[in-house]
Amino acid sequence: MGKTLVYPKKESNTANRYKHRATYDLAAIHSIINSSQVLHVSFNPGPSDPFPAILPMIGQMASFDYPSAGIGEPLDCYLHGYVSSRIMNLARASEGDGLPICVAASRVDGLILSLTPNSHSYNYRSAILHGYAKLVTDEAEKLWAMEVITNSVLADRWKHSRIPPDKAEMSSTVILKVKVVDGSGKIRDGGVSDERKDTENAEVTDRVWTGVVPVWETFGQPVPSSSNKVEGVPEYVTSYVASMNAQNRDYAESAVGIPLPKEEKH
Amino acid sequence: MGKTLVYPKKESNTANRYKHRATYDLAAIHSIINSSQVLHVSFNPGPSDPFPAILPMIGQMASFDYPSAGIGEPLDCYLHGYVSSRIMNLARASEGDGLPICVAASRVDGLILSLTPNSHSYNYRSAILHGYAKLVTDEAEKLWAMEVITNSVLADRWKHSRIPPDKAEMSSTVILKVKVVDGSGKIRDGGVSDERKDTENAEVTDRVWTGVVPVWETFGQPVPSSSNKVEGVPEYVTSYVASMNAQNRDYAESAVGIPLPKEEKH
Repeated sequence: MGKTLVYPKKESNTANRYKHRATYDLAAIHSIINSSQVLHVSFNPGPSDPFPAILPMIGQMASFDYPSAGIGEPLDCYLHGYVSSRIMNLARASEGDGLPICVAASRVDGLILSLTPNSHSYNYRSAILHGYAKLVTDEAEKLWAMEVITNSVLADRWKHSRIPPDKAEMSSTVILKVKVVDGSGKIRDGGVSDERKDTENAEVTDRVWTGVVPVWETFGQPVPSSSNKVEGVPEYVTSYVASMNAQNRDYAESAVGIPLPKEEKH
Repeated sequence: MGKTLVYPKKESNTANRYKHRATYDLAAIHSIINSSQVLHVSFNPGPSDPFPAILPMIGQMASFDYPSAGIGEPLDCYLHGYVSSRIMNLARASEGDGLPICVAASRVDGLILSLTPNSHSYNYRSAILHGYAKLVTDEAEKLWAMEVITNSVLADRWKHSRIPPDKAEMSSTVILKVKVVDGSGKIRDGGVSDERKDTENAEVTDRVWTGVVPVWETFGQPVPSSSNKVEGVPEYVTSYVASMNAQNRDYAESAVGIPLPKEEKH
């Protein structure tokens, strides 16, 4: 009955700007992470380097111990990488809880074109997680995480590819498991918002067009490789492409929150 | 005659995986940054916090001192933010060179569906920069950076909005200027790449469809706000939307590197 889990608010994850757009809700944050094709993962390379590093990685929130856990329940973040990459070496060498990292995901859903440059904005969804990363050493958990991550790129792809990975493939791939300590998200939707000093100034409103340009990610028609031997694009591929296109476009257009021009409604 | 500038290779920005995809070329790296709607900016909040932070921000590479500098010449990274945000407070309080930060941008251009999960990949473009961030204090440089950043959201928007920003707007907005120390990029394009053990295994190739799904960002039809008083969508908006859509789609489809199915060519 609707008990919503939220991440604890700490200094490190608490919004101090546009608080009304902030969310600490597990379901909202996990959904943003899991629907993002790329996660940006930050870590500190070591005491001799003043700069934090950022790696683009593929990952998913899921629970190996409770595989039926819903998106709003406590989940771990699994990240996919190469055995000898720097982040994997650091995580392997880390002591105690693991390597402290930050995971971020952001999607732009629209351009908000307001009267003044200062009130310009995006419709967007963004999320961050802080947590401690360790290498997954249990082979069953690693294989399961590889399947979850592969299927996040394209639903059901794992079982339609050549599996299981062989020994060399298993050892060249490393999965990081992030125990999440806190997280937060921000969601901006809706239309243009300007201040009265401008909306009541006819010189400005007569001249400046305001509105929203929806933005979404489109998947094109699948192109078979020159070595492909399978006739026709499989249904699980075409239906994934079609459903992502509909879902992405619907989200961006609904986020505008104002009626779309007739010819464009779908 | 075509002298290409590159960032110095240091431990912190040198690829040790897929080296052939790596670039240190200023033009390539700056182009990825400047064509990204969102940059992920990482910094360390302070000694009491073990986790690096990541903020999604809007920014552009440009040169105030040499405004005619090309994309392949040394440029600074300008980031837009709010006066009292944590990163701005840290940059304001930073001593010496400024706040050490990492700036990252990534775009997905296609899903690479290979025979085995391990050879799955994305076509993508990613870039990172390391540098020292300081607040822009010169008012002329700040105003110029605000214009550059606004126009990166939608070309020519600045001069079509209510400008200049008033005193309150100027003081609530802060621009970070990042003096870049090093940078690197990675670009993956082309088709599927599998190992011979699989490509020569008919049991696998007869069963597993391989190919590329191009991915690009689409801008929808502009939706006027309910308070908009300007008739029709201005030409600079519609032409930006049209050119971005053509450019994004062309890139993703060309990146595939194999002929597209006839009905889809454009």
